Amino acid sequence: MENQSTGQGMFTWDGESWLSDPEDAFGFRASWKVKKVLYRELSSFQEVSVVETVGFGRALVLDGIVQTTEKDAFIYNEMITHVPLAVHPEPERVCIIGGGDCGAAREAVKYPTVQSVDMVEIDPKVVEASLQYLPEIAGHGEPDSRIRFHYEDGTAFIRNRQGTDDVIVVDSSDPVGPAAALFEKPFYQDVYRALASDGIMVCQSESPVFHPHVLKRVHRTLKELFPVVRTYLAAIPTYPGGVWSFTLASKTYDPLEQGPERLQAGANRYIDRDVYQGCFRLPVYVKELFTDR
Amino acid sequence: MENQSTGQGMFTWDGESWLSDPEDAFGFRASWKVKKVLYRELSSFQEVSVVETVGFGRALVLDGIVQTTEKDAFIYNEMITHVPLAVHPEPERVCIIGGGDCGAAREAVKYPTVQSVDMVEIDPKVVEASLQYLPEIAGHGEPDSRIRFHYEDGTAFIRNRQGTDDVIVVDSSDPVGPAAALFEKPFYQDVYRALASDGIMVCQSESPVFHPHVLKRVHRTLKELFPVVRTYLAAIPTYPGGVWSFTLASKTYDPLEQGPERLQAGANRYIDRDVYQGCFRLPVYVKELFTDR
Repeated sequence: MENQSTGQGMFTWDGESWLSDPEDAFGFRASWKVKKVLYRELSSFQEVSVVETVGFGRALVLDGIVQTTEKDAFIYNEMITHVPLAVHPEPERVCIIGGGDCGAAREAVKYPTVQSVDMVEIDPKVVEASLQYLPEIAGHGEPDSRIRFHYEDGTAFIRNRQGTDDVIVVDSSDPVGPAAALFEKPFYQDVYRALASDGIMVCQSESPVFHPHVLKRVHRTLKELFPVVRTYLAAIPTYPGGVWSFTLASKTYDPLEQGPERLQAGANRYIDRDVYQGCFRLPVYVKELFTDR
Repeated sequence: MENQSTGQGMFTWDGESWLSDPEDAFGFRASWKVKKVLYRELSSFQEVSVVETVGFGRALVLDGIVQTTEKDAFIYNEMITHVPLAVHPEPERVCIIGGGDCGAAREAVKYPTVQSVDMVEIDPKVVEASLQYLPEIAGHGEPDSRIRFHYEDGTAFIRNRQGTDDVIVVDSSDPVGPAAALFEKPFYQDVYRALASDGIMVCQSESPVFHPHVLKRVHRTLKELFPVVRTYLAAIPTYPGGVWSFTLASKTYDPLEQGPERLQAGANRYIDRDVYQGCFRLPVYVKELFTDR
């Protein structure tokens, strides 16, 4: 057997092309066999690629790390978007930080009360690649006219807002590189200020298995700022460990008291009312992260 | 980079030892970095190994495929055992088909009504390796005296029983090789006959993401035999896709109507009453497997 590197995360293995996540702290690597590379550009921030995999459809890859695939992007995007939008009784203004694959924005506009979705993605190449090569995730055709694209640093964008947003979705990559600041208290304080008086934020808070310290810290930090903080889970095959956490922080509304009846789940493939009510039921080992402070 | 195979599923990668699952139908491979091989024997059925991984603790490996690891065996074993044992109001006789890692048997004896656990594992080497090298999974010290070990073919064992068991747990490996028959209707018919008149069986029914056809077929076949059939899920990091299904089939009791109040969850790390009530809430894409017959 011979391996040969042919780009970030790419190598040939027994003559076939593979994409392999870098080894993580647990000595684990996931590898996907690749049919072809559809897009590869070096942006100002990172290497952006779209590859066609054998079993997961097309995948968005940043700096050699798979971010999302056609096979299961719907799980992540439905879960990060529908929960806060169903909890808020009348979401009008939505802001998405990150989310360059456009999948979260596409879900948000399913809520008829939504008047605007400000999508703040630092890297225009990610949006360009997604709109062109990932229509199964980003949507076919022109994006909904309520979506406004801002190519800026999310932390700076949020800092300039006050009492504006009903829902802020922090759809970031891992807490390394450009996304690291999106896991820190100063950013959450700015998010709190940017939200309306009954606003809700949600963030992806990493794997409870592989990054329990991140989830624990996010949950604790948000607890210092918001009266209602709820972590929920979804099973996302593409991500290491398969189970992923999202943490919702709210100024007023509690997802355990309201939400499912407003879920716009008609076209969903993952979340319905049933799943909504199940996703907050955390395994014992996850609950324990929040009791031992 | 250079790869060199050093045993089933093992190879060196950049000079380090790795264990890699064979490529699956989705062109996906999971790889674990290995510190050392603790046990390797060729049994009459398969190559049985225990390896010490970098991030998942010790792993039981059959024919190069990781079956379970110290990091998350508790999830699988709690889920396959506690659900049926909590649903049955007074389980006395339990039979486990497979389950050579002894983890399910260890959970079963947590139920005080249980008088015997017949553990039917075809391969004594698996039990030997687990008792010796995987005490975190199999339990420390002598196995509970209620556990009786039978080293035979599970299909033959079950065929000779009638109206005996309160709970039968089918804790098999994937439906290839020795375990294939455990996914077929003749076996389920024998299980039905082996169960008492209010008996319950549960089986691992593979990944809803990677093997939806298996899950769908298991569910449909059991529906032809049992009045109550319920599939439930758990997030198990070691398994490809991360989400795993279990299917419970019952002659009388319905887990949606009873169960959680009898859960012996005191020492559990995954399932408590809350998780019990959440695990039957299936994502839309899983529900759809059962509606389209």
